[in-house]
Amino acid sequence: MDLSRFAINQITTKNWTLGQAVDGYARAGVRGIGVWTEYADAHGASAAKLIRDAGLFVPCLCTSAWVNLTDKAAFAAALDENRRRLDLAADLGAKTLVVVPGSLATGEKDLRAARARVSDALEELLPHARAAGVALGLEPLHPMYAADRSCLSTFAQCLDLCERLGEGSGIVADVYHCWWDPEFEEGLRKAGPDKILTFHLCDWLAPTRDVYQDRGMVGDGVIDIAHYRGILDEIGYDGPFEIEIFSKLDWWTRDGDETVRVAVHRCAPFVATRPPPALA
Amino acid sequence: MDLSRFAINQITTKNWTLGQAVDGYARAGVRGIGVWTEYADAHGASAAKLIRDAGLFVPCLCTSAWVNLTDKAAFAAALDENRRRLDLAADLGAKTLVVVPGSLATGEKDLRAARARVSDALEELLPHARAAGVALGLEPLHPMYAADRSCLSTFAQCLDLCERLGEGSGIVADVYHCWWDPEFEEGLRKAGPDKILTFHLCDWLAPTRDVYQDRGMVGDGVIDIAHYRGILDEIGYDGPFEIEIFSKLDWWTRDGDETVRVAVHRCAPFVATRPPPALA
Repeated sequence: MDLSRFAINQITTKNWTLGQAVDGYARAGVRGIGVWTEYADAHGASAAKLIRDAGLFVPCLCTSAWVNLTDKAAFAAALDENRRRLDLAADLGAKTLVVVPGSLATGEKDLRAARARVSDALEELLPHARAAGVALGLEPLHPMYAADRSCLSTFAQCLDLCERLGEGSGIVADVYHCWWDPEFEEGLRKAGPDKILTFHLCDWLAPTRDVYQDRGMVGDGVIDIAHYRGILDEIGYDGPFEIEIFSKLDWWTRDGDETVRVAVHRCAPFVATRPPPALA
Repeated sequence: MDLSRFAINQITTKNWTLGQAVDGYARAGVRGIGVWTEYADAHGASAAKLIRDAGLFVPCLCTSAWVNLTDKAAFAAALDENRRRLDLAADLGAKTLVVVPGSLATGEKDLRAARARVSDALEELLPHARAAGVALGLEPLHPMYAADRSCLSTFAQCLDLCERLGEGSGIVADVYHCWWDPEFEEGLRKAGPDKILTFHLCDWLAPTRDVYQDRGMVGDGVIDIAHYRGILDEIGYDGPFEIEIFSKLDWWTRDGDETVRVAVHRCAPFVATRPPPALA
């Protein structure tokens, strides 16, 4: 079982501290951990050493602070917090800060304004990102989050924005957010391996019982993950594969070790460095 | 109050029969009713006369039968049912059958195959639609319905399909399903007034508590409806405006007369034939 490119995003084991997650993942042979700011902050200054000592790589730090703020001082403070997170990412050895920038401000209805504000924020953060050696990882988020979590809704939209931003920006692709998009495949091919910073695995449950926190374990839903893996191989993607599950109704209620064991078992066919066998 | 282009889609008053809806809408000065097959069938053969006698127009019949069937006989039967619905639409004076075709078959993960099957089904139905004088109204449905209700997920995708189908097809645009789409505006302009068969009004609640049935009353959510109305005026759209709300948590629990009264009040600024005043 080749897990050399495989990471677990720690939100998948929401109830574990950073220390527990690092131990649990390493124990299961997982080679990487997607870190969340909140857990790293709670652990304190030795978080980087903890992860390094366990031999884990860090595909990304989640997430940027929201910039859905029309008040100038509040917006500037959010940018400062994002600069701090870029520094934290660099300290942890993460090459990517996942950009989930929020969307509409309170009372706002102008989605174009929200998108322009995010674009402005990213331009302002870019010099700091470049200096820190951490890419701004634009993540297309499912359109059902377009009002609140992120106004970055499609792969094509994120790729356009990356092309404007240039060096220091890229895409965080997640099958959960993009699988429905008729232009997802074309987007992956257009982006090419260099613009895809990390690739998130998850599954879409039908029916989905909760808008926010009912994402499925790989294999339990309808997403044709083997198909997307095939495209990634075709374009020469050689970056990380990272499972990320928000699941208050199921996986977050289970023991972390069980979640990790099932995640490894389910993801193994899709994360090995050699192309996976064709699926029936 | 100019309600000459305004209809209520009868699912908005889910607990009313067709007869109650026709009475209730006419009583409130509403000029049209979006009809659902199930209610028309329950009413029986005099449904068309009932609506005509009340002086209501019918912007559309909802919806096509799902064609998410890999079994050939079942698929053929679904096409027959769709032909029946096209005839029903013609009988009711509806110029559009709203196409909500389902998506993945049971156990299927190949979304491209599902989309190809829908395209095939529409091609097969087209001669019947043309003969009946009823357009196949492709409705881009929110991507959160891509696994089950409809694999028609974006305006651009539907417009492409319409262009291939040609005469006898068009778009049913609903702000609820499309508001998040960075290409929605461009799609409206590209479609032009002739391809937009009817325009649905609704609102996106933040947070949304239920994936399927927590759509908001116009004005209660985040969608900038005045903005889209402005675009429709710019491109010369002179078709219907139709409110359609799925709301098991709120409006479906209320008295139908109350829902109609609030719907009329909230929609009036957006449905008059003259352009609405610019909003602050």
